[in-house]
Amino acid sequence: MRKVFTEELQFITDQLVELSRLSGAALRQATEALMDADLEKAESVISADQHIDAVRRDLDARAVDALARQQPVATDLRMLVTAMRMSADLERMGDLARHVAKVVRLRYPQRVLGESLTPTFARMAEVAQDLVTEAGRIIRENDVEAVHQLTITDDEMDDLHREVFRTLLSPDWDSGVEAAIDATLLSRYYERFGDHAVSVAHRIVYLVTGEWGDDHLDIDERLDVTEVRRPAHLG
Amino acid sequence: MRKVFTEELQFITDQLVELSRLSGAALRQATEALMDADLEKAESVISADQHIDAVRRDLDARAVDALARQQPVATDLRMLVTAMRMSADLERMGDLARHVAKVVRLRYPQRVLGESLTPTFARMAEVAQDLVTEAGRIIRENDVEAVHQLTITDDEMDDLHREVFRTLLSPDWDSGVEAAIDATLLSRYYERFGDHAVSVAHRIVYLVTGEWGDDHLDIDERLDVTEVRRPAHLG
Repeated sequence: MRKVFTEELQFITDQLVELSRLSGAALRQATEALMDADLEKAESVISADQHIDAVRRDLDARAVDALARQQPVATDLRMLVTAMRMSADLERMGDLARHVAKVVRLRYPQRVLGESLTPTFARMAEVAQDLVTEAGRIIRENDVEAVHQLTITDDEMDDLHREVFRTLLSPDWDSGVEAAIDATLLSRYYERFGDHAVSVAHRIVYLVTGEWGDDHLDIDERLDVTEVRRPAHLG
Repeated sequence: MRKVFTEELQFITDQLVELSRLSGAALRQATEALMDADLEKAESVISADQHIDAVRRDLDARAVDALARQQPVATDLRMLVTAMRMSADLERMGDLARHVAKVVRLRYPQRVLGESLTPTFARMAEVAQDLVTEAGRIIRENDVEAVHQLTITDDEMDDLHREVFRTLLSPDWDSGVEAAIDATLLSRYYERFGDHAVSVAHRIVYLVTGEWGDDHLDIDERLDVTEVRRPAHLG
């Protein structure tokens, strides 16, 4: 009985790692579609999101089933509750990748981004990839020590988000309101993707220690977009 | 023992209703601050969000505790799992109200919205209030029948979101890029507030029936912002 349960917990962990891989792959593809105005790739991200949703649904059903059958306590209980929370974050990251792809589809055959914003978004995508890859590794290895470094990596995402607003509000911006709306939403999608990766990692702290860290309050949104924009506004 | 557990479940339900009341009050206040450029009111929403976070944290801790002590199955188990999901939605709705308040603070003493957008946002706020009030009632009364109507009410929110983009992209828009960025983000906050209210209501369906409805896939985002924007773009 215990052996079956241990196997079930391992399966759930594996599926969380798989979800992080899938949402990372979705954002990588969506970014490629964004950079190349590649409609086919965008469509592929949009349809693949159903698979992410299905994996999440299956994972949650198994977690509820394990709660019902195994009546776990302590660490096992925390594991199952945490798994359901992490699956929600990871599935949402897939949604955000899909949102990026949908902006690409909306503007096709035009490119969404002009030259002034392309390098910033290219770097946002790299940081997002680092964050989700590291979050997956932290899940797999229960590596609580690495969580702090992840939040530092996410600080660069916030800097890049700020950089987008600086570009949009600079006197050189001549691409108009529609392009500014696209960039505002895209920037928010990448930044939120990073937030959820950080959130996943923080949940590992709860899983391992049973305590939320000091920054538990900030898990769902580490930095408000308005705070990001203040320097742009003042400068 | 059973009596204690029933009381605990009732307490958790009451706290969910309380969270819906708090997030609704936060958005109402944030909207008043938005309409009147009222810094004091905005600050009050921003600091009150900590209380919402605390209620949510307490609720989740009680739910985990009840899982550990009572080892519930069937409906009781679903109730506790669902409560944790609903608390995440409701807490996020409080965050979104806080985001609105932060935009007000960022632009103070200026008003964020010009005349052309004010009526649309006033109506968005009313719809949001209807949605969260109704979601609270659905939680209290387990009123599965009312969930469908709620999604219809939310359709108006999506129409209003579309209306914002139409205004921003019309030839009459003369308030510039920064005001367009503000309106884009604000509109997204109200629209997401509505999505989460619908999500809360849908979770009641799962709680009562044990099944996700047909539209379970759309719970987390009923309408992508890109789809909302398509007509504005084409027309």
